[in-house]
Amino acid sequence: ALRPLPLGAATITAGFWRDRQDVNRKATIPAAGERLEEAGTLRNLRRAAGREPAADGFTGRLFADSDVYKWLEAVAWEQSCEPSEDLAERQAATSALVAAAQEPDGYLNTYVRLASPGGRFTDLEKGHELYCAGHLLQAAVAQYRATGDGTLLTVATRFADLLAAHFGPGRVEGVDGHPLIEMALVELYRATGTQSYLELAQYFVEARGHGLLVPPGHHGPAYFQDHLPVREVRILAGHAVRALYLASGATDVAVETGDTELLDALRSTWQTMTESQTYLTGGAGSRWYGEAFGDPFELPPDTAYCETCAAIASVQWSWRLLLATGDTKYADQVERTLYNAVVSGVSLTGGEFFYVNTLKVRDGAYADDQRSAVAGRQPWYGTACCPPNVMRTLASLDQLVATSDQDGLQLHLYAPATVSADLHGEPVGLTVTTRYPWHGKVSIIVTESPGSPWTLSLRLPAWAEGCTVTVNGSEEPIGQVGRSLPLHRRWQQGDEVILELPVRARRTLPDDRVDSVRGCVAIERGPLVYCFEQLDQPEAVVLDRTAVVAGELVESDQPGLLGGVTTVAVPGRLPDGSATTLTAIPYYAWANRSVGPMTVWIDAR
Amino acid sequence: ALRPLPLGAATITAGFWRDRQDVNRKATIPAAGERLEEAGTLRNLRRAAGREPAADGFTGRLFADSDVYKWLEAVAWEQSCEPSEDLAERQAATSALVAAAQEPDGYLNTYVRLASPGGRFTDLEKGHELYCAGHLLQAAVAQYRATGDGTLLTVATRFADLLAAHFGPGRVEGVDGHPLIEMALVELYRATGTQSYLELAQYFVEARGHGLLVPPGHHGPAYFQDHLPVREVRILAGHAVRALYLASGATDVAVETGDTELLDALRSTWQTMTESQTYLTGGAGSRWYGEAFGDPFELPPDTAYCETCAAIASVQWSWRLLLATGDTKYADQVERTLYNAVVSGVSLTGGEFFYVNTLKVRDGAYADDQRSAVAGRQPWYGTACCPPNVMRTLASLDQLVATSDQDGLQLHLYAPATVSADLHGEPVGLTVTTRYPWHGKVSIIVTESPGSPWTLSLRLPAWAEGCTVTVNGSEEPIGQVGRSLPLHRRWQQGDEVILELPVRARRTLPDDRVDSVRGCVAIERGPLVYCFEQLDQPEAVVLDRTAVVAGELVESDQPGLLGGVTTVAVPGRLPDGSATTLTAIPYYAWANRSVGPMTVWIDAR
Repeated sequence: ALRPLPLGAATITAGFWRDRQDVNRKATIPAAGERLEEAGTLRNLRRAAGREPAADGFTGRLFADSDVYKWLEAVAWEQSCEPSEDLAERQAATSALVAAAQEPDGYLNTYVRLASPGGRFTDLEKGHELYCAGHLLQAAVAQYRATGDGTLLTVATRFADLLAAHFGPGRVEGVDGHPLIEMALVELYRATGTQSYLELAQYFVEARGHGLLVPPGHHGPAYFQDHLPVREVRILAGHAVRALYLASGATDVAVETGDTELLDALRSTWQTMTESQTYLTGGAGSRWYGEAFGDPFELPPDTAYCETCAAIASVQWSWRLLLATGDTKYADQVERTLYNAVVSGVSLTGGEFFYVNTLKVRDGAYADDQRSAVAGRQPWYGTACCPPNVMRTLASLDQLVATSDQDGLQLHLYAPATVSADLHGEPVGLTVTTRYPWHGKVSIIVTESPGSPWTLSLRLPAWAEGCTVTVNGSEEPIGQVGRSLPLHRRWQQGDEVILELPVRARRTLPDDRVDSVRGCVAIERGPLVYCFEQLDQPEAVVLDRTAVVAGELVESDQPGLLGGVTTVAVPGRLPDGSATTLTAIPYYAWANRSVGPMTVWIDAR
Repeated sequence: ALRPLPLGAATITAGFWRDRQDVNRKATIPAAGERLEEAGTLRNLRRAAGREPAADGFTGRLFADSDVYKWLEAVAWEQSCEPSEDLAERQAATSALVAAAQEPDGYLNTYVRLASPGGRFTDLEKGHELYCAGHLLQAAVAQYRATGDGTLLTVATRFADLLAAHFGPGRVEGVDGHPLIEMALVELYRATGTQSYLELAQYFVEARGHGLLVPPGHHGPAYFQDHLPVREVRILAGHAVRALYLASGATDVAVETGDTELLDALRSTWQTMTESQTYLTGGAGSRWYGEAFGDPFELPPDTAYCETCAAIASVQWSWRLLLATGDTKYADQVERTLYNAVVSGVSLTGGEFFYVNTLKVRDGAYADDQRSAVAGRQPWYGTACCPPNVMRTLASLDQLVATSDQDGLQLHLYAPATVSADLHGEPVGLTVTTRYPWHGKVSIIVTESPGSPWTLSLRLPAWAEGCTVTVNGSEEPIGQVGRSLPLHRRWQQGDEVILELPVRARRTLPDDRVDSVRGCVAIERGPLVYCFEQLDQPEAVVLDRTAVVAGELVESDQPGLLGGVTTVAVPGRLPDGSATTLTAIPYYAWANRSVGPMTVWIDAR
């Protein structure tokens, strides 16, 4: 098993992700503070804390507290990257407000406090109380780890103690309709060592699928992730975010309790999801209705839901399975999902968000819902789960760059970075230089090394057929890609490893069972999925009636376009048979100029 | 413009539709009486009528009253086909109950009476009060026309008078979130001659699209059909049943008020819907989410919603446009929709229903909703709009067989039937003999005719390329199909017209813009759409991985299968390239033996 590096041990120093992190820090997070105020979300806390009249009631959706917690988590992680007075002030003030809103016995939920007094734990199906609690716990652990500030941790442990005393075998039997608490409790257990948190997480995982929840409306038990015991699930169904948060929590429980049967079940389910229930972008959740997974191979690009939160949850799950197994296929999926389905969820300026990450918009499309991509990115949402989820993900991205195990270090995400770690008590350091994902050369220089041999492992992505690796200029044998390449030797300061990834535009064919894209291709380049946006095409092109044909894919670096992208020109054919040239841009960057027809998959017959 | 024949003037005497009508009469309608009792729907009326304690409250969805009204409408139409003591008793008892539940001022809604006293017209967005009223009005008109019983008509006019006094310019401005009242008011106007009902219908049509409704949740104004003034709509959006009931009512208003601008707008919208927003089955509504129309060419077969009620509403609208214009394309669409999207909604035994009429079920499909086809047909639904809608449609089907105008008679649906009418005061009679839709020969014998010449018009369906017509053995020139063939002469008793329709299995290609079926074909035969159901295929066949290839389509009459159908054997190819033979059955008959993988469209590359 792999271990995360200590916080701060890996730092992304430049490039694609650092640019996004800078925008997140400077624009997105501060603006979100204002949105949380405008939406009444912070006011709910002030009313619950008695700083404003509680009788004025609650504003927003009943899970609104969670938006504050996710934002606080982002604020915390940002400070592990770089301290900031502004962030520290926001953290202190808001954490104090959260603490003040906590009830004397440790319970905390402003909706129940203000709008449903006496309603504690009476609507586990829809109430989201444990979901909100889970985000509180995660924010508290982040704050404690990132800044040493224990304000939220105290709030979190008091609430977790109440939950542990309330729920469980011989106490109240119940689970929350929206999973999340499971992984949050394991994280709190890791931060505090309190065994009852792990036991409660284990209970919540095992108690599902036994009918404790009573579906209140049209949706069946899968929507609430209560249709099967977790260890019997092999194909995900129901609400995608719920399914993936639960899978992440169950993975945590399996790892902490050494439950290999549960871990094997989860790995099998992940495999099925990745092969048949995940879009090329890494997006998960085919259905608007119930925000749900579709049946295997039900992956329509136009009606894809692909909620930003589901992509983030998928990254969390894949990351946990990577740590548990060391298998690079999980890291490949983390990378694919981050570069496409996650970062598509926020605009280049950082001020607007997608809730739904569709893979296709037609001519004449109509938006009858704020979440529709056709409505364009929005500054905030009535259900505002996605924006702060993107914020905490970007703010904590450094943590996904590398891991360690007893033999050495593993690099997972290729970005300009510094990595330092401790191998059996001795320091090791790396500097990574690259223009990835735009160009394939990754240089890794050893800046510090123990005298004894250790292993530097490089992920060779499954798409990277033909990559090469040199160590101090001599080529290493590669063999298969889609695996980890372990370089074991007595490393010296100044040693240089160069990984050359074949970052070139390529055509990707779909599985024939995905009927909605049969006969189509997509363009990919390195980890990036591309798309055709109407405004880049010649005037005569109607995307739904245009095909791509064989011929060279011509790449152009466009430093002035969309923050700097490489575009791909693709030979095409109009309905009348005449030739044309289509232009593809990275999918994540679409809808930053205007919103119109767009497609990832295009006819290739 | 065409006129409906008087009730009872056309009677389907045998064959496909008569079989379905017999099941409807003998099994479906009586069983539905029991379902309405079990579901508490009739009990709501007893409580509202003071026959049981009102304090015991309301059961079911807030629009449950409408289920009773639609069922009463079916009971009424059935009596126009054949009087029945049992039906008459059901009609009398239930109508008396409805009358007793009416409030002194004419208002009637058991949900408001029992569960929301004082809540009259306070939730026009979601309350469905005028929707329920509309179904009451329709039942009342049916009952009065079919049986002469004015019990419900009295209830209906008292309620309609209250509505006319309450709503309108200078009174309360408002429209219902669920259209229906518009066409019901025009029908009541036609039955009673009361001008204010037409005026109110016109108001309700014109008042939409001006923001009178405030969308209360995720759905935008299109869900409530309030996004645009009706005469500005060119592409349908939002909830399909609401859109189609409104379009039907607006057509009624346009016809009654001579509003050709409105009628032209509706015809244009119908054309767009039929060409780009309607499934091959005639089903309407691509999206589960919001039960809504998709964007043009968004017609995924697997996630198709195609609510049975939407298909029925589509028939109602097409029928109205047929009457208004005489254009047979509307009758073609009536036929396609009835044979496929409507009658698929009820099992062959008449006891179970589909709410959603999908065009594809995958391997490993999972149902997390009672409405999912994967759950199989259901004896009733929590929202039970579809079953009684099928009942009233089958019970009134005789009315769609033929129409008249000043020149003569028009035949629209080909079925064994007798048709009598009055042309300028003189009787005319026809007897139709056919085994359609299984075989293409339709014999029409003139049984009675005036001495002067008149026109018998036959619909030549658009798919019927190569059809022939003979009159007393001599062939008539046909010209184009997809139009009405007028046969003008001095008809004599005993004259025989024989229409030979080319009822042969054929391959249908999709529009290239429907990406989800690109590269596929469907099998059709006459007006019937076919499908491949797993249990009819050789064991090695996985439908999603099997293609059909060129070769003969072999038809077999199977009198013992599914109530008697013609199956079609289609040459196919397995993924390993080996040959196989697939078997197609009529789509409407699927899921009558078991529920498993099924597809209408199949790979043909």
